[in-house]
Amino acid sequence: MVELFGTEHGLARHSELAELAHAAGISVDPISDKAAAGLSETVTPQGLIAVCLRVDTSLAGVLGRRPALVAALVETNDPGNAGTVLRTADAAGADAVIATGGVDPYNGKAVRASAGSLFHLDVVLDVDPLDLLEQARAAGLSCLATSGAGGRDLDGLIDHGQLAGPTLWLFGSESHGLPPEVLAAADRSVRIPIHGRAESLNLAAAAAVCLYASARAHRARHGLAAGADDHTAERTEPHSV
Amino acid sequence: MVELFGTEHGLARHSELAELAHAAGISVDPISDKAAAGLSETVTPQGLIAVCLRVDTSLAGVLGRRPALVAALVETNDPGNAGTVLRTADAAGADAVIATGGVDPYNGKAVRASAGSLFHLDVVLDVDPLDLLEQARAAGLSCLATSGAGGRDLDGLIDHGQLAGPTLWLFGSESHGLPPEVLAAADRSVRIPIHGRAESLNLAAAAAVCLYASARAHRARHGLAAGADDHTAERTEPHSV
Repeated sequence: MVELFGTEHGLARHSELAELAHAAGISVDPISDKAAAGLSETVTPQGLIAVCLRVDTSLAGVLGRRPALVAALVETNDPGNAGTVLRTADAAGADAVIATGGVDPYNGKAVRASAGSLFHLDVVLDVDPLDLLEQARAAGLSCLATSGAGGRDLDGLIDHGQLAGPTLWLFGSESHGLPPEVLAAADRSVRIPIHGRAESLNLAAAAAVCLYASARAHRARHGLAAGADDHTAERTEPHSV
Repeated sequence: MVELFGTEHGLARHSELAELAHAAGISVDPISDKAAAGLSETVTPQGLIAVCLRVDTSLAGVLGRRPALVAALVETNDPGNAGTVLRTADAAGADAVIATGGVDPYNGKAVRASAGSLFHLDVVLDVDPLDLLEQARAAGLSCLATSGAGGRDLDGLIDHGQLAGPTLWLFGSESHGLPPEVLAAADRSVRIPIHGRAESLNLAAAAAVCLYASARAHRARHGLAAGADDHTAERTEPHSV
């Protein structure tokens, strides 16, 4: 963050945040409600506007850190989906998200849908998908392309331990999926099983299923037990999931 | 469907659908582009407007059919999330979705996000959540309430075979989660593990992870192998996931 603007109400409501920013040497400036409405893209702005630097990094930098889990959005067009995949990738413990050829992850709607995760993960923009596959494979990642017509069933990959190693998941556009040349160049094309009558899954839902399958496989491989059950925490506070 | 309206372009583009409707005795009426724009809620209408009857059913009817997997949306407010959960529940092979206290699943945006799944599943509206828990438990369903502060970790439930039986998953509102009385009355409160720095998952992403965990546990219990790998289908057509 390089600068913070806030309405009187916004700064009062988030005073600890404003204090943290001030203590970090960031300029904190009061603005009017009208100015906040003008600067914000939402109908009911929260009263705080932060000016931030982009955080995108290079593919070589990401791969040099030997990532275990990477998600790539190839020609994904919906900013809500792109932001939600960023948030889910972060939650699943992914190291990086690559976005190429679709919506800009710095689009306001994508930033809001990412719920802060844009700033938690390495983000790489505008890599050619075939270069991405070549470099990811050279770095030891298994390159899995999601497709409704994929040759491998996700459950089968889990059963055969094929998600245990470092993995790059590729997700395509909402309407057309991944480009044929990307599907052809990936190590495997993978379909999520459809048990009911839906034709397909929403892109962000599909990404959640794949990324959490990888997270679970990685934990199992490293012998990590599931989180301790804390029965004192049970049946207490409501909390969003 | 009780009636179908279409623009010249819409009816030509989906002529097989119009023929099916006509053959089923449904009135198919041409309308102008202007009328289609007026009837549609979207900026670029597809040129077909169907008038449909609501398909909601009763909770007793649903439970009487001994469902194995049911999703409940309790005070879920975002129509996109509600529709996406319907679509995901359908894909995961759920039998029914219960929606109570939040957005109407027949909201236009929810219907579109459900991508047809609203018409594939049993949908039950406006049940009191505590009545739902009582009746679901009496019907033999394990009632699992999702919560970021849940006492049980999803991976732990999977590891201990606790998703193998009939299950009702409860999802709350995007901002407040499930009401405390619902969390208290459920059999277990369950958290999805967060491995990275995200505070939480998007509601529809969380539902995808939970519902697919149940689908996989049910298949394992019934000794169903993962779908056969069809290598002839690999690396062929692009297809959305």
